[in-house]
Amino acid sequence: MAEISTLGEFGLIRRLTKDIELKNTETLKGVGDDCAVLNFGSKEHDVLVTTDLLMEGVHFDLTYMPLKHLGYKAAQVNFSDVYAMGGTPKQITVSLALGRRFTVEGMDEFYEGLRLACDAHGVDIVGGDTTSSRTGLAISITCIGMVEKGKAILRSGAHPTDLICVSGDLGAAYMGLQLLEREKQVYYQQLEEARRKDPKATLDFQPDFAGREYLLERQMRPEARKDIVEKLRSAGIRPTSMMDVSDGLSSELLHICHESGVGCRVYEERIPLDYQTAVMAEELNMNVTTCALNGGEDYELLFTVPLTDHEKIEQLEGIRLIGHVTEPSLGAALITRDGQEFQLQAQGWQAFS
Amino acid sequence: MAEISTLGEFGLIRRLTKDIELKNTETLKGVGDDCAVLNFGSKEHDVLVTTDLLMEGVHFDLTYMPLKHLGYKAAQVNFSDVYAMGGTPKQITVSLALGRRFTVEGMDEFYEGLRLACDAHGVDIVGGDTTSSRTGLAISITCIGMVEKGKAILRSGAHPTDLICVSGDLGAAYMGLQLLEREKQVYYQQLEEARRKDPKATLDFQPDFAGREYLLERQMRPEARKDIVEKLRSAGIRPTSMMDVSDGLSSELLHICHESGVGCRVYEERIPLDYQTAVMAEELNMNVTTCALNGGEDYELLFTVPLTDHEKIEQLEGIRLIGHVTEPSLGAALITRDGQEFQLQAQGWQAFS
Repeated sequence: MAEISTLGEFGLIRRLTKDIELKNTETLKGVGDDCAVLNFGSKEHDVLVTTDLLMEGVHFDLTYMPLKHLGYKAAQVNFSDVYAMGGTPKQITVSLALGRRFTVEGMDEFYEGLRLACDAHGVDIVGGDTTSSRTGLAISITCIGMVEKGKAILRSGAHPTDLICVSGDLGAAYMGLQLLEREKQVYYQQLEEARRKDPKATLDFQPDFAGREYLLERQMRPEARKDIVEKLRSAGIRPTSMMDVSDGLSSELLHICHESGVGCRVYEERIPLDYQTAVMAEELNMNVTTCALNGGEDYELLFTVPLTDHEKIEQLEGIRLIGHVTEPSLGAALITRDGQEFQLQAQGWQAFS
Repeated sequence: MAEISTLGEFGLIRRLTKDIELKNTETLKGVGDDCAVLNFGSKEHDVLVTTDLLMEGVHFDLTYMPLKHLGYKAAQVNFSDVYAMGGTPKQITVSLALGRRFTVEGMDEFYEGLRLACDAHGVDIVGGDTTSSRTGLAISITCIGMVEKGKAILRSGAHPTDLICVSGDLGAAYMGLQLLEREKQVYYQQLEEARRKDPKATLDFQPDFAGREYLLERQMRPEARKDIVEKLRSAGIRPTSMMDVSDGLSSELLHICHESGVGCRVYEERIPLDYQTAVMAEELNMNVTTCALNGGEDYELLFTVPLTDHEKIEQLEGIRLIGHVTEPSLGAALITRDGQEFQLQAQGWQAFS
């Protein structure tokens, strides 16, 4: 019997879904992109569907993640998948499995965060399921969106010579997570020491987040990039392929290369980094490029545009050109600051590692 | 701080969603029915969305539920919600959180059951999410369906004098669960006894299911009632309200009464029961009517039709007329075999009890 970890998340999904044939004319695109694309007879809009399942202890840690932030983030990460198709999120369903220690007030907080996110993006909460859990919290959100008919931006449309662009900056959410984990360790160490002297000791602990607010915000309060989709639209730029950066830039670039049947060259020096990300990486003795490539949870948009859009893209604030699409034979390469070439590897967040 | 159990599942959902205002013209019906009803510009069809979250140890027990059956059932219970709106299921997304002891082969089995159900109902698997779980298995399925524009059958359309009908028979799935639980207890008792003599003893245990196959099938292999929806359509009967019986007849009748602002009278002697259900209830010293009213997981259709459809309904096989809709002031009443009147109570499956 093979263990799941031998395949990894993407390997497992591929195995389970590889020979699925689509039966319905209402299904335009099934498994394999940020959203499925459906149409039920509308001449104006296609329907987008995406879903996420978040498990306590795997995707979030309630010791430092307030429920309000968790609700906010759980909604945003689903909106991000809809924007990654060039669409607009319209509805979500929210299913929760609650452990015994959850209180009604806790759930009110979760919903407060959820609603904040929904209000900001014009999304309706239209249904869901609430049940109990023998163990931790499980959150499943499905987001329904819409996109102009036939205009969903897939991962499969990149062509050689296209420019590769990314919004915002990368690696900060991962650094935020490292910071939270470090302070959690410090807290438990101090608590243990205090309890060695007095077994009933409590701790008035103040985590040290000074000057790191941006990293925390990126980890705890991500914002789906609706603004980027709108900016591209008003600039008359239509990406040839797009996806959101949830598992890490490396992993996402490989998805686009695989789905489009192309290669890519991206330049280390062009990967957008925030100052706090760089400082934190140095402090933790980590390579900041590795964090940006493999950290994940950035929820930025990665997309390709035709070479002819070069000037238009350069004029847009908050978008960085990081490389270009190549023939598939060249593979997916990272060119380092000193001119060396490495093949990209999907070391991103591995759900089964 | 209030514990979740003080509110119950429906109380919690009501609290969390009570003041949600719908913002989008694309949202026709939000929380409060078997499915949400959406429209993205189609003049022919509205879109239906329903979702379910199933947790190991709460909704299923892998000691007696084979993964193939679990996949089959998880899909069917979602299809059932779409049929309950008079619609046709078209797509599902499937999210799984897997504990460490899950094998690739186990997941193949789950997907085999899932595909069997999807093939039987013409449904495409269009996406999902696969991740790990620190504990047990979590399954989240979202089903997308379609229904003729403006023709979704809500819970809110029942009128006084309408007839109340139910398909198939009730209580058998619950009896199947009792049977499985009983045999599980017998197994563990025998194992314990054997291990008192030899700590390494294993058990060649054959559960006693003879003559109870129907109960097991109802529990482990429910069939969403596509046939009933089709039968009603070809007979030219349009229910004024409809829902599926997942939590128990009592609970569902109360939902329809609440949403439609009506009362009801249902007759104990008319509640459809299978012979095996009655025998098993007697064996377990349980009241068979209570099982049928509160057992749940029947996945039959409960619906109301205008009084003028009386003759048409009587001619349809597999549909039982169990009572009628009344003015709200009369409440929701069960008339027992000996003519006594009881107010119905939602004692159905309580997720938080």
